[in-house]
Amino acid sequence: MTTRLNRVRELLGTQSLDAMLVTNATNRRYLSGYTAEDHAPDESSGVVVVDSGSATLYTSPINAGWAEAEATEGVTVAHCQRQWTATIAEVILANGWKRIGFAEGVTTVADYFHLRDTLGDAAELIPVGDAIDRLRAIKDDTEIALLEKALQLTDQAFVAAAARIEAGQTEFELAEIIREELKKVGSEGEAFPTIVASGPNAANPHHNPSDRQIQPGEPVIIDMGARHQGYNGDLTRTIWVGEPEPKLIEVYQLVQKAQDAALAGFKPGETGKQADAYCRDIFASAGMDEYYIHSTGHGLGLRVHEAPSASKLAEGVLQPGEVITVEPGLYIPGWGGVRIEDVVLITADGNRNLTGAPKN
Amino acid sequence: MTTRLNRVRELLGTQSLDAMLVTNATNRRYLSGYTAEDHAPDESSGVVVVDSGSATLYTSPINAGWAEAEATEGVTVAHCQRQWTATIAEVILANGWKRIGFAEGVTTVADYFHLRDTLGDAAELIPVGDAIDRLRAIKDDTEIALLEKALQLTDQAFVAAAARIEAGQTEFELAEIIREELKKVGSEGEAFPTIVASGPNAANPHHNPSDRQIQPGEPVIIDMGARHQGYNGDLTRTIWVGEPEPKLIEVYQLVQKAQDAALAGFKPGETGKQADAYCRDIFASAGMDEYYIHSTGHGLGLRVHEAPSASKLAEGVLQPGEVITVEPGLYIPGWGGVRIEDVVLITADGNRNLTGAPKN
Repeated sequence: MTTRLNRVRELLGTQSLDAMLVTNATNRRYLSGYTAEDHAPDESSGVVVVDSGSATLYTSPINAGWAEAEATEGVTVAHCQRQWTATIAEVILANGWKRIGFAEGVTTVADYFHLRDTLGDAAELIPVGDAIDRLRAIKDDTEIALLEKALQLTDQAFVAAAARIEAGQTEFELAEIIREELKKVGSEGEAFPTIVASGPNAANPHHNPSDRQIQPGEPVIIDMGARHQGYNGDLTRTIWVGEPEPKLIEVYQLVQKAQDAALAGFKPGETGKQADAYCRDIFASAGMDEYYIHSTGHGLGLRVHEAPSASKLAEGVLQPGEVITVEPGLYIPGWGGVRIEDVVLITADGNRNLTGAPKN
Repeated sequence: MTTRLNRVRELLGTQSLDAMLVTNATNRRYLSGYTAEDHAPDESSGVVVVDSGSATLYTSPINAGWAEAEATEGVTVAHCQRQWTATIAEVILANGWKRIGFAEGVTTVADYFHLRDTLGDAAELIPVGDAIDRLRAIKDDTEIALLEKALQLTDQAFVAAAARIEAGQTEFELAEIIREELKKVGSEGEAFPTIVASGPNAANPHHNPSDRQIQPGEPVIIDMGARHQGYNGDLTRTIWVGEPEPKLIEVYQLVQKAQDAALAGFKPGETGKQADAYCRDIFASAGMDEYYIHSTGHGLGLRVHEAPSASKLAEGVLQPGEVITVEPGLYIPGWGGVRIEDVVLITADGNRNLTGAPKN
């Protein structure tokens, strides 16, 4: 954790900041070990303040015991008033800090107004964008081990659930089977609500499981993840019961070809746009790119979606230590869809596939 | 839903606004029927814009089908760019709106900056605080029926789980039993992570279930809730296995006395501060008020915590149609604690207890 805090301190140096406010639950956990979630944007469970020499986790007295039990080396726990901005403004003024970094993407306008108005001319709030989030993109060895475990649990639960699939089950029933198997293998819960999308429903990448019954031969997209010590798995497979209809074979093979190209290509130094293009180009060659309606990959860790990104709009290049999904898909309205998703670790000279679940 | 939208339009009138932005997932669902959650403060699933004559739900093309399937009468679905502020700014400018209400407590600084900078002098963003949230405080008949059902499911699951409690079980095992029983009775899931706090752990109102084994005679606080069509149950009981230790009987009776006073007293027109004082005064008379470290009650609905509030800091008065918890507790460090929580509906002349779970 000391290494992580020191990376925040490097940010203080490069941006001439006296301190950084960390208000986001995930970044707070990443830097302090404190696992509390925020109930809502306006119900903070704590704020970490990092300056050149210290890191302090401010929480309500109610949560202080929890925070002290979990806080890692280098992090001190202190009490915070109900309105955290009141306490943090006092701390800023008491320390004489002038330039304070904050993440404008996860700070509410109400908190910002209150801090700004309380500080007046004494200090300036500097938006730092997703600078702290981006620190999390490159995983350390501890994190890689936890992600590998989360992905192994995901694979195991998928294999166990796949063995129980039958025609006539509803999407909802299959999702429930997956939840059961996730629990059996020891997952902390679902990394995200499991998607089961059958037949025409598979044309919607974000379909919620319904009471539609699975029919033989049609595509069934399963998107699921285990969670292990806060780290998330993410796996998509498209399966079918009985003999697949010819169109399914055709679409499936094209998506697999796109994924194979990306799995062979992802490596350090590659832009997120290039990484996305491995799949998009193959779909375009087949005249199918209009059916590729999402990005190729997203980072995975304490959040299910985090840096880096492989997409048409991605900025930045892939770096060793990043963990990213590779998940091309095609979605044909009225018919259905196919998506296949693995997760890879970017290595010194390429990538290593962390997903072991069988395809087909 | 039309009634709900018209209550927003009354707000437009009283605050001289041309339109209101509804960005919060709960309020969005309340006004449009669209059930999508937001994955994070910076990953909106949609924005509802209400003006005097229309209500439009803007979502990404990926979510538009889902939104159209759920959108209620009076709500039109339209596409939104990835950065929702870009689309909404265009809409504001195209309509020539000058004063736009927004909820500063659930809007990020990044979104606010982007909207403000795009609109320039053409329109002004007016913070409306929790005005939209407060519309949800008074429940209509549909909502009351859904809450009653959520609370009945909660009661049923509690009774079933209570029958399975044995000394030697860990808190975590008991929490798992509760989750199973919630599922069996047909809950959509947990309204919030179930709390099981035994012995000294019961001194922490927000304790997470641990591997501590439940001992005979000590207090075990169970705080749990079913969810039904998005509406949340909330129930706390303090139980014990075998014969209770004398101190537990004493503390329990005092908490029950405080709750009885509040259950007899909650009525329309009463301030939230007065409502809280029913319990706090009884604890003070017994010299125990230092151990009452939270508020007496919170509203319950699509959110587990919402308006109104019964607390030392509450503003406003109770009104017919509000649904609020009554949950005094005492927390004695090193020993443990007792909390008892029912949920009541404020009626024309008093309140009706919606909770049916037995108390010892």
